[in-house]
Amino acid sequence: MLTPRHFEHIMSLGQPWEHQHGRISLDNSNSHESNLLEYEAFDVLSPRGPLDEGLSVLSVDMRVAENRKDHYTDNFKSSSLIVRRNKEFTISIKLDRAFSAEQDDVQLEFLIGELLSPNDNKGTYITVSIGKGKHNRHWKGRVVEIQGNEVTVGITPNASCIIGRFRTFVAIVTDFGRQRTQRNQDTDFYVLFNPWDPADQVYMDKEEDRQEYVMNDVGIIYNGEYNNISSRSWNFGQFEEGVLDACLMVMDAGKVPLLFRGNATEVVRQGSALLNAQDDKGVMVGNWSGDYSSGTAPTAWTGSPEILLKYASEGCEPVSFVQCWVFAGVMNTFTRCLGIPARVITNFFSAHDNTGNVKTDIVLDKDGKIDRSRTKDSVWNYHCWNEVYMKRPDLPENFSGWQVVDCTPQETSDGLYRCGPTSVNAIKEGELSYPFDAKFVFAEINSDLIYHKADKLGNMKIIYVDTAYVGKLILTKKKDSSRYEDITSNYKYPEGSLKEREAMQMAERRGVSSRDYLPLAEAGVTIELQADTIKMGENLKLTLNIKNQTSQTCIISAIITGCVAYYTGVTSTTFKFENKSATVEASTSESDTSYMPYLVEQSNLLFVVYGQVEESETSLSTMRVVNLHPPELTIKVNMTGSPMVGKELMVSVEFLNPYNFILQKVNLRIDGPGLILTKLKYYSQILPGASVKYKVLLIPRFLGKKVLMACLDCPLLRQVTNQLEFEVVKDENRNDLKE
Amino acid sequence: MLTPRHFEHIMSLGQPWEHQHGRISLDNSNSHESNLLEYEAFDVLSPRGPLDEGLSVLSVDMRVAENRKDHYTDNFKSSSLIVRRNKEFTISIKLDRAFSAEQDDVQLEFLIGELLSPNDNKGTYITVSIGKGKHNRHWKGRVVEIQGNEVTVGITPNASCIIGRFRTFVAIVTDFGRQRTQRNQDTDFYVLFNPWDPADQVYMDKEEDRQEYVMNDVGIIYNGEYNNISSRSWNFGQFEEGVLDACLMVMDAGKVPLLFRGNATEVVRQGSALLNAQDDKGVMVGNWSGDYSSGTAPTAWTGSPEILLKYASEGCEPVSFVQCWVFAGVMNTFTRCLGIPARVITNFFSAHDNTGNVKTDIVLDKDGKIDRSRTKDSVWNYHCWNEVYMKRPDLPENFSGWQVVDCTPQETSDGLYRCGPTSVNAIKEGELSYPFDAKFVFAEINSDLIYHKADKLGNMKIIYVDTAYVGKLILTKKKDSSRYEDITSNYKYPEGSLKEREAMQMAERRGVSSRDYLPLAEAGVTIELQADTIKMGENLKLTLNIKNQTSQTCIISAIITGCVAYYTGVTSTTFKFENKSATVEASTSESDTSYMPYLVEQSNLLFVVYGQVEESETSLSTMRVVNLHPPELTIKVNMTGSPMVGKELMVSVEFLNPYNFILQKVNLRIDGPGLILTKLKYYSQILPGASVKYKVLLIPRFLGKKVLMACLDCPLLRQVTNQLEFEVVKDENRNDLKE
Repeated sequence: MLTPRHFEHIMSLGQPWEHQHGRISLDNSNSHESNLLEYEAFDVLSPRGPLDEGLSVLSVDMRVAENRKDHYTDNFKSSSLIVRRNKEFTISIKLDRAFSAEQDDVQLEFLIGELLSPNDNKGTYITVSIGKGKHNRHWKGRVVEIQGNEVTVGITPNASCIIGRFRTFVAIVTDFGRQRTQRNQDTDFYVLFNPWDPADQVYMDKEEDRQEYVMNDVGIIYNGEYNNISSRSWNFGQFEEGVLDACLMVMDAGKVPLLFRGNATEVVRQGSALLNAQDDKGVMVGNWSGDYSSGTAPTAWTGSPEILLKYASEGCEPVSFVQCWVFAGVMNTFTRCLGIPARVITNFFSAHDNTGNVKTDIVLDKDGKIDRSRTKDSVWNYHCWNEVYMKRPDLPENFSGWQVVDCTPQETSDGLYRCGPTSVNAIKEGELSYPFDAKFVFAEINSDLIYHKADKLGNMKIIYVDTAYVGKLILTKKKDSSRYEDITSNYKYPEGSLKEREAMQMAERRGVSSRDYLPLAEAGVTIELQADTIKMGENLKLTLNIKNQTSQTCIISAIITGCVAYYTGVTSTTFKFENKSATVEASTSESDTSYMPYLVEQSNLLFVVYGQVEESETSLSTMRVVNLHPPELTIKVNMTGSPMVGKELMVSVEFLNPYNFILQKVNLRIDGPGLILTKLKYYSQILPGASVKYKVLLIPRFLGKKVLMACLDCPLLRQVTNQLEFEVVKDENRNDLKE
Repeated sequence: MLTPRHFEHIMSLGQPWEHQHGRISLDNSNSHESNLLEYEAFDVLSPRGPLDEGLSVLSVDMRVAENRKDHYTDNFKSSSLIVRRNKEFTISIKLDRAFSAEQDDVQLEFLIGELLSPNDNKGTYITVSIGKGKHNRHWKGRVVEIQGNEVTVGITPNASCIIGRFRTFVAIVTDFGRQRTQRNQDTDFYVLFNPWDPADQVYMDKEEDRQEYVMNDVGIIYNGEYNNISSRSWNFGQFEEGVLDACLMVMDAGKVPLLFRGNATEVVRQGSALLNAQDDKGVMVGNWSGDYSSGTAPTAWTGSPEILLKYASEGCEPVSFVQCWVFAGVMNTFTRCLGIPARVITNFFSAHDNTGNVKTDIVLDKDGKIDRSRTKDSVWNYHCWNEVYMKRPDLPENFSGWQVVDCTPQETSDGLYRCGPTSVNAIKEGELSYPFDAKFVFAEINSDLIYHKADKLGNMKIIYVDTAYVGKLILTKKKDSSRYEDITSNYKYPEGSLKEREAMQMAERRGVSSRDYLPLAEAGVTIELQADTIKMGENLKLTLNIKNQTSQTCIISAIITGCVAYYTGVTSTTFKFENKSATVEASTSESDTSYMPYLVEQSNLLFVVYGQVEESETSLSTMRVVNLHPPELTIKVNMTGSPMVGKELMVSVEFLNPYNFILQKVNLRIDGPGLILTKLKYYSQILPGASVKYKVLLIPRFLGKKVLMACLDCPLLRQVTNQLEFEVVKDENRNDLKE
């Protein structure tokens, strides 16, 4: 019977319960918790039955091993249950008597975050009933088996549920009240995205894709130069102990509302902001200054777990220092760990266009030097970002699939340093209106380089335009291979094609300013630099080719400048120039150059030619990056036969200083997911001609292909890396080990 | 002749000059300044001519009055030059001899922000040359007139230039160097958006539109209830002294990069974040608690200048307290002041859907009371936001025009409390993928109200769905009128039309979850509440109409609950309920209710009927808001004839306390742009039956229609307002005054 008090607050539709200032606050931490009462009495005036009908829960078994195998989560080094959305897992409940579906009412309650608002509509408080009270709205539940006093329940988290760590309670409901189990950490479990399930936002069709983009915990990140590609192995280590908790902690520290955590688009967007420490207390501090003495050099890291675990163990203090490939490596770990397919991308000659006009402006002063105060854009030798794979229900259908996301702090996006996710398909078509940051990514691969020169009066003139320099080549690791895959055509139609022009026109209709600079006079003369890749200490042979395509003899005055270059395009001291003048019909000239001791990290030399055809006063310009091959780092497995699961294995890393100078403050790291946690060895110095050998004992824990990687790094010599791949086999003498 | 040092830094394409952590920092303050050297020598080895050829600048005249008239900025109470983009203004330069276009080289330099990077490519450092060195890239310049030693130069800021305060320098350039004028505040000038110019992003076609949406400094904001609309006048005051500087200060405090300030989309988006103090030190603190004792009550303000000037004068400390119409009023000032056309919108029954699912869920507990912990969405009686008018070059063309922007902190948008700009056309079509926040605004006007009820076991059932309640009516002030304009059809196709269904389907394809709840059984019986608007102290006549459309007699049990309601939907104590049972064929029943002393701000009473048809056990629900008319506030002009420019005018505001209780802590404000700065009078109490009279002397400064407004506010009686419109005429006896 209805009574007036039923309606006391019927129109309290907007009470700002939780705080004073905003209208509504959202739960935004997975680590905060408050729990349910152990006993909750109903407001019943006349008890109808005796209390001794009551049922009690003796124990709850999350069936960790069995469920994790089914959910592709058995690689995680964790004792907890880890499941994926929209796939059934089972829980066994031991009762003090047999369960009766007709008479008993058992309710499983799953809780994430604080209980301030156990709002089942928002997915933070889930109830699943079995027995007579059965009525479930979000997660499916069913009785799988009743065996004696034990009932096994199948639970299916819905396909869009919040991901993170849930707490489990089992309640016995009677007419008088609800009796709950106590909070028990052993019954906590994690729900992840599910790329295996077609209803999940991150569904991936092919098993081989899922194996690479979700399950592979090592990878290769490409760097160097587009015509001389280098690479290094990276320990993503998404299954290492503590990494999953660290990833959730990143979202907690960044106050990502729990409500948003079932949405992969939100998770990667907020992740891209939170993994850099720029403008929030994020995970990693970017540093491109060359001085890394107050932290670890960006080049010295071998993988993500060391960084994420350091962040988590030090109370969410940002980790120093990293650069783009580290940002991308850790982003890859973050996403794969949560179940979102991801891969690391390298874009060679990546523009950083800070005005969003798809023109990278390089301003030369009246003397022809770069005017740093007027040149705000830049071109990186290479830049790394990530792609993540997901449906974009917020966008038209063809923009689902791979999405660019980039956590390196380059520009603020809507107030924070972050970038993406933005559809790769949309970039290719020039459809730049859709969220997030499509214009910025489009510029990274499509900018024109425009050289401006100032005269004495400060007036500017465009002297040269290079439309083909930026976004030369876009690579990622090939699946199930240690080679690269050229994915440039995912981002761009072929240069000069009709489709390319259409995409550019679309981009202009979407706010990219049109290429309105005047066509420049053609010189009819082209210049090109040729160089071989060499090791440090060898002599470099540098060749300048001049091609005269006009019908007249030309006199060309050319200046070749050499300097040491950082991968961001920043240069250190100029060390070499040649001032040449040549009378050319169609001839070739040569020059030799020595280059030591201009060592910087990553050891790139940059040569720039600036020339003038004296007859026509037209300008020519070209540049070339030369990578120096670093000395070798040797990794050896000291055994005969194959490494075996559970059996000790001795590995050694060796290095010889080939230089005539002392290497100081040397860090040597060994890493290998499934084999060893990152090991660090410090040498205060390595004398000229001296060698070091670092031995490590390890015990492989899993079967299959494993990668051991090492990195030696010191201020005078950066990023000397190597990796060794081997197969871990079964020890035929033992049967007690996990396969 | 080229020399090698020309190329020293040629490839320094990415030096992070300004700070260590990020890669590039942007100037983000208009108030920081560093200036140009007074003398800059050129690097010339062999001076070619004698120094006595040199020209000197004696004075620079910004021709403030003339230029401001041409630029529609003469309403601003400021002594500075204020111009609009892409329209020529003139500067007169007095020299020590006559200017020769063939021999002399005079350069005008305009600077905004710090000089760290005088980057003319990014629009913070502009040079305009006249004479022999003429070569201008961004702003056009020409010699308008040469008269004796004075040269008058015409300058045209380009149509997309940064808006804000620029500094002016005049440099004489010779072969030996550049001689500049000193920094002089008198030559500072402001550049604003230009709705008069077709090339400007904010161009508006019709003069009458520009007069209303840019030039009108008073307005009307609608509130109350959709079938009983109230209104109050608002002093936008965008031309008042100091308001323009305060608006620029808001962007400086919010670190909006100067580079973005030429883009109206960015300016309004960042403005919507910065005008609320939620999660940044923005301008206004929202408070819906009912306790405003530590600041000014939201209902007590009469206009924007008082708030903006308080914020600016107190070092950018947030101003307490405001609610949605104040947020919208100040946003309107901010945009109109900068030259962006804007208007205030009121949406009656505005949903606040915090899950973005276009369903507003109201959860009732087992007793039928609102379950506050489970009801996170809310419906406001009304909600105010703004529309701004602009091209959206980032979006397909049909999404230019009016854009919704809302600075009331409701939900975070990409990490900050802000909302929009989002195209009104896109909302109407259900095209919700485009930035910014289209889904949220769509839900505000299109949500379905879904009533859920929990049973004892916590299981939820939908008991009632109301698809027509939310977004009932959308209003704005009609241009050149004091009436309202119904613009609901700008946002929605007619309920039930094919177009409406298509828009909803499009919205669903763009990520709005579909309306998947089951159709509910039709009761065949409808209920309706009728009530007249009354003054406080009068008796309310409330009529419940029950209509039985079935072929059978029904017994209906209904409960009428009354309570005092805030405009946000929050209610205070329930004060009245009636429990009724009626046997109905097609009958009508009546009931009378008394309601004092349940006074809250804005004085709304909310009546809710919840009924059950006993035969079919179907539920019925309806609600009605009744506005109480407050007592009168009288404004009088104490003169015969019309008020005249420059002539003293006495006005008085009178109020009689009609209640039998004391009104305490009474604030009385008088306001009127162009007439008077906000005046505040405080009365510690007004006894029952007592009256107060506040007299103010003012001197009208401008001709034309003026509005004087007053507001009396105290904890027991909120928002007693009135306004008086009169024409200010010319004093025929005086000629020395501005017309």
